[in-house]
Amino acid sequence: MPQNTLPQVPGIRLASVPANIKNWQRDDLLLIEIHAGASVSATFTRNAFCAAPVTVAREHIRNGNIRALLINAGNANAATGERGLSDARACCAAVAEALNINASQVLPFSTGVIGEHLPLQKLLDAIPAAATELAGDGWDRAARAIMTTDTRPKSASRTVEIAGEQIRIAGIAKGAGMIQPNMATMLAYVATDAAIAQPLLDQLVKEAVNASFNRISVDGDTSTNDACVLIASGATGPQLGDVNSVEYLRLRDAIIEVHIELAQAIVRDGEGATKFVTVQVRGARHSEEAMKVAFEVGESPLVKTALYASDPNWGRLVMAIGNAGVEQLETEKVNIYLDDVQVVEAGGRASAYTEEAGEQVFSRPEFTITVDLGRGDIDEYIWTCDFSHEYVTINAEYRT
Amino acid sequence: MPQNTLPQVPGIRLASVPANIKNWQRDDLLLIEIHAGASVSATFTRNAFCAAPVTVAREHIRNGNIRALLINAGNANAATGERGLSDARACCAAVAEALNINASQVLPFSTGVIGEHLPLQKLLDAIPAAATELAGDGWDRAARAIMTTDTRPKSASRTVEIAGEQIRIAGIAKGAGMIQPNMATMLAYVATDAAIAQPLLDQLVKEAVNASFNRISVDGDTSTNDACVLIASGATGPQLGDVNSVEYLRLRDAIIEVHIELAQAIVRDGEGATKFVTVQVRGARHSEEAMKVAFEVGESPLVKTALYASDPNWGRLVMAIGNAGVEQLETEKVNIYLDDVQVVEAGGRASAYTEEAGEQVFSRPEFTITVDLGRGDIDEYIWTCDFSHEYVTINAEYRT
Repeated sequence: MPQNTLPQVPGIRLASVPANIKNWQRDDLLLIEIHAGASVSATFTRNAFCAAPVTVAREHIRNGNIRALLINAGNANAATGERGLSDARACCAAVAEALNINASQVLPFSTGVIGEHLPLQKLLDAIPAAATELAGDGWDRAARAIMTTDTRPKSASRTVEIAGEQIRIAGIAKGAGMIQPNMATMLAYVATDAAIAQPLLDQLVKEAVNASFNRISVDGDTSTNDACVLIASGATGPQLGDVNSVEYLRLRDAIIEVHIELAQAIVRDGEGATKFVTVQVRGARHSEEAMKVAFEVGESPLVKTALYASDPNWGRLVMAIGNAGVEQLETEKVNIYLDDVQVVEAGGRASAYTEEAGEQVFSRPEFTITVDLGRGDIDEYIWTCDFSHEYVTINAEYRT
Repeated sequence: MPQNTLPQVPGIRLASVPANIKNWQRDDLLLIEIHAGASVSATFTRNAFCAAPVTVAREHIRNGNIRALLINAGNANAATGERGLSDARACCAAVAEALNINASQVLPFSTGVIGEHLPLQKLLDAIPAAATELAGDGWDRAARAIMTTDTRPKSASRTVEIAGEQIRIAGIAKGAGMIQPNMATMLAYVATDAAIAQPLLDQLVKEAVNASFNRISVDGDTSTNDACVLIASGATGPQLGDVNSVEYLRLRDAIIEVHIELAQAIVRDGEGATKFVTVQVRGARHSEEAMKVAFEVGESPLVKTALYASDPNWGRLVMAIGNAGVEQLETEKVNIYLDDVQVVEAGGRASAYTEEAGEQVFSRPEFTITVDLGRGDIDEYIWTCDFSHEYVTINAEYRT
């Protein structure tokens, strides 16, 4: 085991165990125990075919007082009908029995292949073992247990001093394909030992997701299972209930930073990705049109194959911008920059632009494409990656 | 030269010449002459960054009385600013001079790389030569002259008897990537020698495009240059002006068939495509939601890589359907069929489904995915292809 990089978060214990869900030799079941009195908030996928565990988790979180999370990799328990729901409930019941809580205090999560039933008995057998192994230093192992096509674990942490006390924030995430706004085959769990009032935490999880996971795209698909959970265990420090207090704002910023770091890690690990690209849109009339342009550019297969080829084919950028459905776009006001190199000026090729300068930027492993629409003062940004041969290979061979 | 497969259409003459636009050895400039008194209708790209020739063609067609089309391959004359517009106008003027008509009677079209200026002099040099070579039997050579990344020419034809006269319909198209509804890097020219009143023809081109080119997708991108032109030369038979006449309806059906054949030929020649797949959506409440579901399935990179792999990963179909934003979709009413094999029943795996049966269908070069939403009686369909290694190769290396 490599050294632990994530701090312990008082009030949170974790256990990762091998449940052999896909006949592999690895941890694939994660149990997270949350101590009594914590606040827990979550956002879920908007896919209409949401998975059984998402349906159950939505039900349970409405009652509040959540005490445990159970996450399995290798099987999504999605499109599994009534049996899928009863499997998810059976998992919650097993956790409840092992931890002596109610089944409705457990949130279930699954990630993996869609359309196959959970190997329920394997999970039921593994849950009691997991309950006996709960420990505060389980974060790094947990980050590995929830991986599917991820090539590396994803985690981030911060420490903030509030009212003289050290407050910790630890987060883990998984996701590499089907990444898209509105929570796409992506799971993220962020916990702090601060005490944050439930309404404030509900607002914060939305804010944090909007600043992070809703700005990433690997291939424009959205999964059936995505979720992001934010836990404030309340083990340390005073209860934070004032949205304008300096303490809360400092903690909020650190929590958002953790989300952003996790979101970027997912893009960097995008299936087959070789480049990490920020698409920044400036000069929009409103946020919606800026985001539409950013995603149209960041999700265009033609743009993404050009990124892969390190080919500054700016015609494709222009094509994508034109496709974004911006009403009455004045193309002669559009400027485009590749890092500091202006490539499009007033809707056409910039006079000083050289193909060599463009290629130099496109060859970098990380760079920014800036689109200035010249019609307002709103800026937005997203993070994306390229579309490679490896992406096709991974997704053509996923089940075999 | 292979034998001509397309019929001559009285009232239409064509000439294809090499203008050496991309330093290649091939025809790349097509001139189509239309005799006086013809009706001409067209639809154009909705991309806001529309190319200079699209702007000019839109201007010219408003005046009616169109007498010639000029189409070049190898350069899109898009994102080329004022100079692009004046280049397109200069081409029209050269055609007008050669044919002794007005420049406003010429529609210009370009396809190829975006963002580079037209090699204007090469076009101006080639236009007079083209004018001297106009001939009625130029359709097959024309289909080749307009190709870019196409691997084969695309053409279709029909003959219909109206009022005792043989009426001919001939059509050519180009397009292989950036194919999407609303006319994406796709050019199509269909002509008949029938006489169709202008208002009827204007309606017919919309109907025909809606039944054909707006139902295809290769990669979800839309180009700056697309156009579809329908010409009724009026050289043969009586003027058709009644939308309900048997003669008109018979001609209309044949014209729509030509459009569909051309549209399907584009999908079959999709960049890197190895499969031709019809996505049929049944049981929708209205056409919009049926089309949204069809395109969400037909454009999902995860579905398209599964098609490529001949892997009936129906979980991805379910994921894509769930992403289509259908309001209050009842997933337990959704059924999915791969040709005649039911794979999803009531939102879950069909009890009689076997992986082998699914694989057998997915291995076919052509098959139909049918999604029954079970919420209405509207059906729609689109045609799509798979996403292969070859797609990435073609698009990563297009300019090099």
